[in-house]
Amino acid sequence: MLEQLGKQAKEASYQLMNISAAEKEAALLAIADGLEENIPAILAENKKDVDALKAKGASEAFIDRLTLSEKRIRDMADGARKVNQLPDPVGEVLGMTKRPNGLVIGKKRVPLGVIGIIYEARPNVTVDAAVLCLKTSNACILRGGSEAICSNSVIVDTITAALKKVGLSEHSVQLLRDTSRETAAQMMKMNEYLDVLIPRGGKGLIQSVVQNATVPVIETGTGNCHVYIEKTADLAMAADIITNAKTSRPAVCNAAETLLVDEAVAEKALPKAYEAMKEFGVQWRGCERTRKILPQIQPATEEDYQTEYNDLILAVKVVSGLDEAISHINKYGTGHSEAIITNDYSASNRFLNEVDAAAVYVNASTRFTDGFEFGFGAEIGISTQKLHARGPMGLCELTTTKYIIYGDGQVRR
Amino acid sequence: MLEQLGKQAKEASYQLMNISAAEKEAALLAIADGLEENIPAILAENKKDVDALKAKGASEAFIDRLTLSEKRIRDMADGARKVNQLPDPVGEVLGMTKRPNGLVIGKKRVPLGVIGIIYEARPNVTVDAAVLCLKTSNACILRGGSEAICSNSVIVDTITAALKKVGLSEHSVQLLRDTSRETAAQMMKMNEYLDVLIPRGGKGLIQSVVQNATVPVIETGTGNCHVYIEKTADLAMAADIITNAKTSRPAVCNAAETLLVDEAVAEKALPKAYEAMKEFGVQWRGCERTRKILPQIQPATEEDYQTEYNDLILAVKVVSGLDEAISHINKYGTGHSEAIITNDYSASNRFLNEVDAAAVYVNASTRFTDGFEFGFGAEIGISTQKLHARGPMGLCELTTTKYIIYGDGQVRR
Repeated sequence: MLEQLGKQAKEASYQLMNISAAEKEAALLAIADGLEENIPAILAENKKDVDALKAKGASEAFIDRLTLSEKRIRDMADGARKVNQLPDPVGEVLGMTKRPNGLVIGKKRVPLGVIGIIYEARPNVTVDAAVLCLKTSNACILRGGSEAICSNSVIVDTITAALKKVGLSEHSVQLLRDTSRETAAQMMKMNEYLDVLIPRGGKGLIQSVVQNATVPVIETGTGNCHVYIEKTADLAMAADIITNAKTSRPAVCNAAETLLVDEAVAEKALPKAYEAMKEFGVQWRGCERTRKILPQIQPATEEDYQTEYNDLILAVKVVSGLDEAISHINKYGTGHSEAIITNDYSASNRFLNEVDAAAVYVNASTRFTDGFEFGFGAEIGISTQKLHARGPMGLCELTTTKYIIYGDGQVRR
Repeated sequence: MLEQLGKQAKEASYQLMNISAAEKEAALLAIADGLEENIPAILAENKKDVDALKAKGASEAFIDRLTLSEKRIRDMADGARKVNQLPDPVGEVLGMTKRPNGLVIGKKRVPLGVIGIIYEARPNVTVDAAVLCLKTSNACILRGGSEAICSNSVIVDTITAALKKVGLSEHSVQLLRDTSRETAAQMMKMNEYLDVLIPRGGKGLIQSVVQNATVPVIETGTGNCHVYIEKTADLAMAADIITNAKTSRPAVCNAAETLLVDEAVAEKALPKAYEAMKEFGVQWRGCERTRKILPQIQPATEEDYQTEYNDLILAVKVVSGLDEAISHINKYGTGHSEAIITNDYSASNRFLNEVDAAAVYVNASTRFTDGFEFGFGAEIGISTQKLHARGPMGLCELTTTKYIIYGDGQVRR
């Protein structure tokens, strides 16, 4: 069955390689319209999923992520319309050179082909992933969480009906309706048909894909991010930034988890930052030196520095200076987003150069690491690996390149 | 032990991130000099490997690939000097944008970090890989074939002595001296320390890495390449190109394996091509229609179209036109290099657009797919996957990017 899905996706990907911008536009708009027209049916199917999950006694947060409303469906449709308006990256030729033998060699941006997306029980990801893949002329095979199978089925049926309406292969977007673990494991090894696999979701899901896939994976997600207050920092700015980085949305991957402070300014900087985030109820856990300044807080353990809390908890450490800050970050960080607050030119340069992460900030909150904030107009995820894409991924990251070579009879001697 | 190597490599990679162009130059030149100074020692160690292999009764070709000579060592040294002269891709900023909130976001080219390279018993790859990694400021862990362990050990000792001489960490280039399969398998899962794994060698080696690695892999290698003679082709040019693509170096991955001919010109094109490559002793295997025109050749089976011969054998098929040619190539090809010979504008465009391969040619031999022929000045391998790099890989493909963000106190609301 999976083999069949793979073959069909590959076939569809060849058709998608050659469709025009107008055809893509028609498809994305038809999908948006289709979703809105099908609101009652989608809500009905979603209710089945939600009821089943409630009966199982799942957490409120889990149920909330799964639950659709008329507004949420309209937002999904609007999302498709917004992606439609983005510039199409496919077809651009990134430079063309003429070789001494007369060959003209260009590097052309082309679709990846077939993208597999494995995600959790969030039906909005179904639309989002399908739309981003179509916009970049890729076919996709979607494997969503089993708890959302009724919702995902009706959504994908809506999408394929729209595709058929505008004359595109219905196999451009396919859902893996058998949501067993075995089939997911098989999908991760489908190298013949899948060009790339993108896991979207929590740490467990992503690690399972990284550990088991033989298809090339783009790893997204985990963020143990730091803010470092260097000794020349504007301390009001520092308090403002660490408060924002910690509290504006603690559950997301670009939130800060550890505050590092230069010993030269710790006595002033720490109480200021502590005061600034008091109203948000953040629990601080500090090293010994931090606790000399703020005796009321809990001690931090080695484990605290390793933890991505995704919660209103902050680990705090006083460091001897830039060197210790950089090596702490390179040791404990997950290569996501790191910030220095400083007014020293050379410290800012060293931090930018020596911290090994996808996004490195001077005097700004780590919370900006995001495809929309970076101006990409879309986001597939935030890559924390170094191959292919690093940091927020926009439409370009769903493409690859091919060399196109124009000759007039050249042979190699 | 491997864990230790990993930690040391990571440490070294942080030092390499910040070395200057002058330091890299000193290192590469010291390595070249060291290799030449150590010629007697390297030859003596190499002899141990060669003698052991001979005692095992290995094939001539295998022994030849392993055997070093004074000239081969001098060539390795010259290779290091040539790589030294290439432009340094590290540090380039690929565009910088200012966001409405005042954040200035740049995308900077940086080293990958630690690169693992797994290869066969070819001591020249040891130098080549180390030099390319150093030029791009990456640390590397090398795991060469067990048959070359004495040669690789003395070569890596020579390299690390040169690194120490110029003040760089000797852990920048490390050899995995335990060449058991178990250790190689462990290395493939060393995600904590390795940023990427590049297998270099035959199909078996590459597939084993793709199947077993959890570290991101760049797949290189296999090439089942086609030349298609379209009906408007200049038939003399076509004969010239297919002869070159098949015979100039049949054992390499960019050599052609199958000739496709449009039925409208088959009667003229096939005898012409057959004549042209007669002197090279190529064995043709044709479809039924080919054999009506050239009854003297053997029949081709389904398996022939799937085979990368790497030998003086050519599969031949008469096709009904461009559509059949493209679908044959997309079905049987390995996404390496594909050529059309044509004088038709729209046929050339369709072939360039619809054939799904790393390098697609009009009126030129597939043999040009090569980092040097493409003007990169170096080649790490030829990627046949679509993530990160596709086609010949030069120095840029050994780098990644990081976002550097300059703020003045921005927080996200």
